Amino acid sequence: MTYHTFTESKLREFTKSIFKKMGCSAEHAELATDVLIKSDLRGIDSHGVARLTGYVRLWEKGRINAQPDIKIVHETPTTATIDGGAGLGLVVAPFAMKVAIEKAEKYGSGWVSVRNSNHFGIAAYHTMMAVEKDMIGFAMTNASPLVAPTFANERLLGTNPMCYAFPAGKYPPVIVDMATSAAANGKLEIAQRMGKPVPDGWIQNSEGQPSTDPHELKKGGSLLPLGSDREHGSHKGFGLSATVDILSAVLSGANYGPWVPPFVAFMEPSANPVGLGIGHFLGAMRVDGFRPLDEFKSHLDNWVDRFSSAKQISADQKVIIPGQPEFLAEKERSAFGIPLIDEVCKDLNEVAMKLGIEPLI
Amino acid sequence: MTYHTFTESKLREFTKSIFKKMGCSAEHAELATDVLIKSDLRGIDSHGVARLTGYVRLWEKGRINAQPDIKIVHETPTTATIDGGAGLGLVVAPFAMKVAIEKAEKYGSGWVSVRNSNHFGIAAYHTMMAVEKDMIGFAMTNASPLVAPTFANERLLGTNPMCYAFPAGKYPPVIVDMATSAAANGKLEIAQRMGKPVPDGWIQNSEGQPSTDPHELKKGGSLLPLGSDREHGSHKGFGLSATVDILSAVLSGANYGPWVPPFVAFMEPSANPVGLGIGHFLGAMRVDGFRPLDEFKSHLDNWVDRFSSAKQISADQKVIIPGQPEFLAEKERSAFGIPLIDEVCKDLNEVAMKLGIEPLI
Repeated sequence: MTYHTFTESKLREFTKSIFKKMGCSAEHAELATDVLIKSDLRGIDSHGVARLTGYVRLWEKGRINAQPDIKIVHETPTTATIDGGAGLGLVVAPFAMKVAIEKAEKYGSGWVSVRNSNHFGIAAYHTMMAVEKDMIGFAMTNASPLVAPTFANERLLGTNPMCYAFPAGKYPPVIVDMATSAAANGKLEIAQRMGKPVPDGWIQNSEGQPSTDPHELKKGGSLLPLGSDREHGSHKGFGLSATVDILSAVLSGANYGPWVPPFVAFMEPSANPVGLGIGHFLGAMRVDGFRPLDEFKSHLDNWVDRFSSAKQISADQKVIIPGQPEFLAEKERSAFGIPLIDEVCKDLNEVAMKLGIEPLI
Repeated sequence: MTYHTFTESKLREFTKSIFKKMGCSAEHAELATDVLIKSDLRGIDSHGVARLTGYVRLWEKGRINAQPDIKIVHETPTTATIDGGAGLGLVVAPFAMKVAIEKAEKYGSGWVSVRNSNHFGIAAYHTMMAVEKDMIGFAMTNASPLVAPTFANERLLGTNPMCYAFPAGKYPPVIVDMATSAAANGKLEIAQRMGKPVPDGWIQNSEGQPSTDPHELKKGGSLLPLGSDREHGSHKGFGLSATVDILSAVLSGANYGPWVPPFVAFMEPSANPVGLGIGHFLGAMRVDGFRPLDEFKSHLDNWVDRFSSAKQISADQKVIIPGQPEFLAEKERSAFGIPLIDEVCKDLNEVAMKLGIEPLI
């Protein structure tokens, strides 16, 4: 594979100009760009500018509204449902998180379920908005069906990620950001490009039998829930994924389960939707709603210290504190640039040409 | 194995009299009994009256206070920290959930972190309190260290369960209640009693290497997080467990990680605790804080219908809707009695004799 490395500012300018060409306001283009670039900076290549052309194709098909009317449709002092107006999840989710944070500022906590949205990028972006305010952040989203529940031979759930973020003192925030499937779809795509088999327990074939062929999904196979099989707790991965689906969509009025619209423009959404767009669930809780902030932070630092110094099985593998690898990637890529694979660059250049924008390379 | 079957009322009377002998108030004895019996009724034998003698032994050692001063030590309109006064988690957690529900009634949601508590029984008991009020219930607790983080050869986390419960319409509530380890400790105990090996991926030995020996934990081994190994996402199980630990203990001022006091009386708690007792985290959100209740319930019924009718891999295995097996067990055991293994009956009889109570059989 060939990589090209770009400065953060170059990628930002390019991305912003694409969003503007789609008709996004300057403010929305800036925000959507920030979500994507943060993902690349943090080393989550599958959710960064590599997805930009996908958003453009959905917009071309009229499935993303670049000028959405995002509004609160139902609320109490600490809960709300937001209709994203079919906008980019990249702008709808930060809007929702702002509402959650405002409620938390007044009442201690705030919780927002979102309908009529689209892919919201990395969940960690949204939870970090809460962490910056010394709050605990929660973010979840449902997603296009790729995962089969335990015992099923049908794709009924997305990789439905959950994210929890906690502000620490001397350390970077502890951020758990994880798909509820055994493997994220991005890992499968890497194996596809490399032509390598995947481990047992990631996928099943169209007959519901174990497989290691990374192309299985195109042939009617499914991803498996975290836990992989019943004996190893796949019903738990299914339960977590169900929780995300219910909080994000059954609660907000979005589509759930197999009705969630596909992220790819070449697949059509269900002709009989049960709700509007895809759903998210976001929350914020003030740390000082529970104990003084400095006490919490110093104990979380102690937690990090203790887990970082756990006895190791192998000399070269320490316990990984959730969020630390991404924090280090951001330091490195901010300084030395963001690598994109050739395939992504070509894809971005094509879209740039079509929209009449200076190509990336 | 030999089983004896008891009526619900007989087991309730027996259990209540034990708690009263410990010095619990009539109200607390009633409540603690209800939590344990609900567990047996729902088929979660590991968390029912089988644990009663364990509570007695901790009380004998002065590690459980039968007349605790349970109080709110910090709060905002929708958040609170509760000190459980070293009481039974079986009474402390329902107290905390009541506070969460009261806050949710007024403001839409309520969240309570608890310190200085003990084992709280099944998490589902507490979330069902919220469901009865047409709210969504959340419950988590940290627990004695048995689980090693990914790459570590040290028991730093409990099986730290998470529970989410949602009220449905024509169906029983959807209740996800799961340990964040690959296998719950109860399953290991069954294998020990039967002298059978356990599947790969549940435990590691004292060298951090894979093992199938169910006695490994007594020899310095550890349980593994959900996902079992890094390739299958054990860092996700670790992340979930970490989330439970932080919300339950770092937030409340309880002990976390390796400092969590052991549930068994023959092991001493840490001489240098970082907090008070064990910690829980409970929450309630009004469904109608997001959308009209009847709409939510009818969509959740539709969700259950769709997942129940998923294409099956095998004719005899349907997709299991979280909470349904426990609901059916409760119907059956309420009608036909609760089976206890001989070993548990003997243990209960011994304690009864010691406390001067009529034996169970």
